[in-house]
Amino acid sequence: MKKTAIQDLFAEIKSTHNPGKIATYIPELAKVAPHQFGMYYQPVSGTGFGLGDHKQPFSIQSIAKVFSLTLAMQLEGEALWQRVDVEPSGNPFNSLIQLETEHGIPRNPLINAGALVVCDVLMSHLSSPQADLLQFIRDVTGLPQLSFTETIAHSEDETGYRNRALINLMRDFDNIKNPVEEVLDLYFHLCSINMTCQELAQGFQYLACHGRRSLGGETLITTSQAKRINAIMQLCGFYDEAGDIAYRVGLPGKSGVGGGIIALRPDQYTIALWSPPLNPKGNSYYGMKFLEEFTTLTGTSIF
Amino acid sequence: MKKTAIQDLFAEIKSTHNPGKIATYIPELAKVAPHQFGMYYQPVSGTGFGLGDHKQPFSIQSIAKVFSLTLAMQLEGEALWQRVDVEPSGNPFNSLIQLETEHGIPRNPLINAGALVVCDVLMSHLSSPQADLLQFIRDVTGLPQLSFTETIAHSEDETGYRNRALINLMRDFDNIKNPVEEVLDLYFHLCSINMTCQELAQGFQYLACHGRRSLGGETLITTSQAKRINAIMQLCGFYDEAGDIAYRVGLPGKSGVGGGIIALRPDQYTIALWSPPLNPKGNSYYGMKFLEEFTTLTGTSIF
Amino acid sequence: MKKTAIQDLFAEIKSTHNPGKIATYIPELAKVAPHQFGMYYQPVSGTGFGLGDHKQPFSIQSIAKVFSLTLAMQLEGEALWQRVDVEPSGNPFNSLIQLETEHGIPRNPLINAGALVVCDVLMSHLSSPQADLLQFIRDVTGLPQLSFTETIAHSEDETGYRNRALINLMRDFDNIKNPVEEVLDLYFHLCSINMTCQELAQGFQYLACHGRRSLGGETLITTSQAKRINAIMQLCGFYDEAGDIAYRVGLPGKSGVGGGIIALRPDQYTIALWSPPLNPKGNSYYGMKFLEEFTTLTGTSIF
Amino acid sequence: MKKTAIQDLFAEIKSTHNPGKIATYIPELAKVAPHQFGMYYQPVSGTGFGLGDHKQPFSIQSIAKVFSLTLAMQLEGEALWQRVDVEPSGNPFNSLIQLETEHGIPRNPLINAGALVVCDVLMSHLSSPQADLLQFIRDVTGLPQLSFTETIAHSEDETGYRNRALINLMRDFDNIKNPVEEVLDLYFHLCSINMTCQELAQGFQYLACHGRRSLGGETLITTSQAKRINAIMQLCGFYDEAGDIAYRVGLPGKSGVGGGIIALRPDQYTIALWSPPLNPKGNSYYGMKFLEEFTTLTGTSIF
Repeated sequence: MKKTAIQDLFAEIKSTHNPGKIATYIPELAKVAPHQFGMYYQPVSGTGFGLGDHKQPFSIQSIAKVFSLTLAMQLEGEALWQRVDVEPSGNPFNSLIQLETEHGIPRNPLINAGALVVCDVLMSHLSSPQADLLQFIRDVTGLPQLSFTETIAHSEDETGYRNRALINLMRDFDNIKNPVEEVLDLYFHLCSINMTCQELAQGFQYLACHGRRSLGGETLITTSQAKRINAIMQLCGFYDEAGDIAYRVGLPGKSGVGGGIIALRPDQYTIALWSPPLNPKGNSYYGMKFLEEFTTLTGTSIF
Repeated sequence: MKKTAIQDLFAEIKSTHNPGKIATYIPELAKVAPHQFGMYYQPVSGTGFGLGDHKQPFSIQSIAKVFSLTLAMQLEGEALWQRVDVEPSGNPFNSLIQLETEHGIPRNPLINAGALVVCDVLMSHLSSPQADLLQFIRDVTGLPQLSFTETIAHSEDETGYRNRALINLMRDFDNIKNPVEEVLDLYFHLCSINMTCQELAQGFQYLACHGRRSLGGETLITTSQAKRINAIMQLCGFYDEAGDIAYRVGLPGKSGVGGGIIALRPDQYTIALWSPPLNPKGNSYYGMKFLEEFTTLTGTSIF
Repeated sequence: MKKTAIQDLFAEIKSTHNPGKIATYIPELAKVAPHQFGMYYQPVSGTGFGLGDHKQPFSIQSIAKVFSLTLAMQLEGEALWQRVDVEPSGNPFNSLIQLETEHGIPRNPLINAGALVVCDVLMSHLSSPQADLLQFIRDVTGLPQLSFTETIAHSEDETGYRNRALINLMRDFDNIKNPVEEVLDLYFHLCSINMTCQELAQGFQYLACHGRRSLGGETLITTSQAKRINAIMQLCGFYDEAGDIAYRVGLPGKSGVGGGIIALRPDQYTIALWSPPLNPKGNSYYGMKFLEEFTTLTGTSIF
Repeated sequence: MKKTAIQDLFAEIKSTHNPGKIATYIPELAKVAPHQFGMYYQPVSGTGFGLGDHKQPFSIQSIAKVFSLTLAMQLEGEALWQRVDVEPSGNPFNSLIQLETEHGIPRNPLINAGALVVCDVLMSHLSSPQADLLQFIRDVTGLPQLSFTETIAHSEDETGYRNRALINLMRDFDNIKNPVEEVLDLYFHLCSINMTCQELAQGFQYLACHGRRSLGGETLITTSQAKRINAIMQLCGFYDEAGDIAYRVGLPGKSGVGGGIIALRPDQYTIALWSPPLNPKGNSYYGMKFLEEFTTLTGTSIF
């Protein structure tokens, strides 16, 4: 892994035209300066390094769904899969059609409906859901200062009509057990976390290290659970672009509408990207382009 | 129209086994005594007459959607049809699939989604939506004492997850303009009205009389609007059983999950039925059976 | 019913701009002169009269589905409704989605899938299906010279990919019992009949006369069966425009992509229209416009 | 990779109860002796070995779709992806709903609709499609004696109603360019190939070797094309069970209704399994069980 080649790649991509569009459905995302671009590479052994705006915090949005899923798997175990499936959706991430057709069981835990069910499961286990979930994320990432961003959570709440439609439909199918508005509140807070590329790459090391904080380090989840999460991220982590990304990038990962991406090669490394403008499928345009060239350059696609 | 033949028919149906099931999703409907059965026949000229429990008030539920539609057509005119279509749904009355496929435009104003849009339209026009709508229904029916039933509205609200899913989805498609919870509140109150068979039959005379309170009486809506409402009731008034009922009964009408039915033959009569147990499609079992035999007996199917 | 008023209406509509488009999917329809416009009015008692090109034969296309349905109801009786439903479709006439969702049972006998099932039913009953069906239509209409148009049947066959998709899907669901290509052949021949407005209006008298060839005449089908067909035509006879037409026209009827329309008022009259250019829903533009004004003028909408 | 551990695993699985059911839709599959079970493991360097019925030929069915896809990618290049997508389907492999919704573009080349489009593409390029495709598969696998099984192709043809529905629907959307029956004929022949586990494992080496017949051997397709096929197999190779298999097995692969499975770890090995009884999702019950334990035992899941 030659650092200079990666630097060259980063510079080259940054110099190309970016046709992407930033998310504007809430003011907090609409006002982010679009030209920002950061990357952090963290091998499972050895020192990582960052490029560009890798120390700039940004709204990780849906990427945080991996943390809540991790905690729900710990707390609920295999019973979780009675409430949410693990198959790719073949539909836009927020479609109600599949949810109606499949009687309120979301296709996977990374689409909005599935992440709402995960939050509902957490509420049934945690005494102070918001505080406890935040503490778990702080522990996993090793970032004790991490917090929710109330303005973002509030904006998500105000525009969250489709999420309200999803959760009420699932409630009607009895697949939501706690009060709808409280589950939504937890969900909106979950999606409001800010992190930097460096924090993301380091915070996701446990999924490259078989569930341990680092190779040989403290066990957070079992090897089997880490494998499950990676498989889910591979098939469902990039909205309706999973198939194309499996080919172009070939790594499990998760993106967010804030323009962030986390990806990882088990046993080898994690890598975080951030650039706000999104491609038509909702994934960071620069981020995907970089990852595609990066796995080709390094020969680290899993395929 | 021989009264004795109708009395015989009523008695005969009452003596048959009723395999229907009463609605139980709210306690107010679940506790209604199921054996009750009433009928009121009101010709456009001459005296009407009732049989059985025709003076017993019951929850008219969705039948009230015809009143709100009538008012919305008065207030909004042809522009209403930009917000809601007039076609039969070919799907269960509360399906989200069609609503998603057709971008938040309900198929017709009598399915739940369409009735919610109608309530939203009313809210945009009325200064005190609940009071004004109630006053309109009092005026149309000539029943100044009519009121909402708060316990029913409250129960509908508490179990209204699917209606919340519908309205939030439409709000996401920008087809709801007022605060979601306020529109729902108006809708749940609308569905909470109690009336007797006699009141229903007399209150719906305007649709048998080309929009006038009685033949030659005060004009409530235009002839064209009355024709429009009758056509909608014929195609969409009986949930997913419209086609079968068009053949068996052959009259425009509207049913409710409380077991009530209103039907009418333009220029001739209105007729109201009530019997709580419902057939599998959600229409009163005895009510439909009576209507079918009634139009055969009297030769008054429109077909 | 003043003839001069109807003549004036016909002339007036003929003088307006016709934005419709003729069907072009087969050459036989594409080459029809678009400006032709005919009408024939036939009361159940008394003499009828025609206007414009009412003696010009045209391809009645889907209108013929009413004849095959009539024969299938005679031959199969109530069992027919196990194979095809009687509800409006709420979807384009040739959609596969509903057919898949509802396990190969078409929504009604007038959409393509339903008409194919009807043809399959006929094949199971008739020894020489094409000849026997043709003879039945000759008998019903009183037109012994009526015949199929081979060039049209052949063209329909050559472009009938969607019909092949529909019938193979139903065969997969076991709702087609005879060889797929033979059923299609019967169907394509059925849709190839040419008739004039006058022949259509007179040939459909049995549906205005309770199943008799004329009031008091020979019985072709029972009163109940005629009522059933009229109800089906009201709800399903005009593709996905049934609701709007129910209001604007208010008569049961059936249209074809050749620009023909038959409509009727039970006990009063039948009326046939023909003008090739179609509105966006696939119904004759002039034909629908005329019918709308006609029922308003004569006050004969069933609503 | 200890051979004895693999032998033990094979014996252990063979001793467990097999609740699977063999495919019976054609007589050639229905009459296969269900207790047969074979495995062949072929590393990219070194000698492979087989267990059980690994020398018994069986109908590879849909596994052959990978060969036709490989050839179509060679002949058509990137333009292929205008005709077929690369996303998982989220629906049963032969559903028409998604095909209708997405205007005749199949979700991926391994579901039936997609494989039909691939056959259509081949027909446009090849002068003798059946002979040329067979020759290509003989070349890729290094098996000059390979041939189609006419009895199986014939049986598939006779029961292929759903495939006929799919291809006619796509033809209606203009996504089939050659005569429908000729494309179907090629497709049914493609699915009629018999191979042994050993032949399968050796014939798929090119996908573990970056498109070369062996590491450092002759180039059949580019590295990028091999990566593309592996990514597609990972996401779409196991019908509607892709997500669960990604976790449990963690290898790209493809299954067939004959009970065969091919899977591979890029740079390491290919492995073929065969046992006719299928689990409810249509994948070999023993085969999947073995693969799951195998990748756990060898630590070779890509996740």
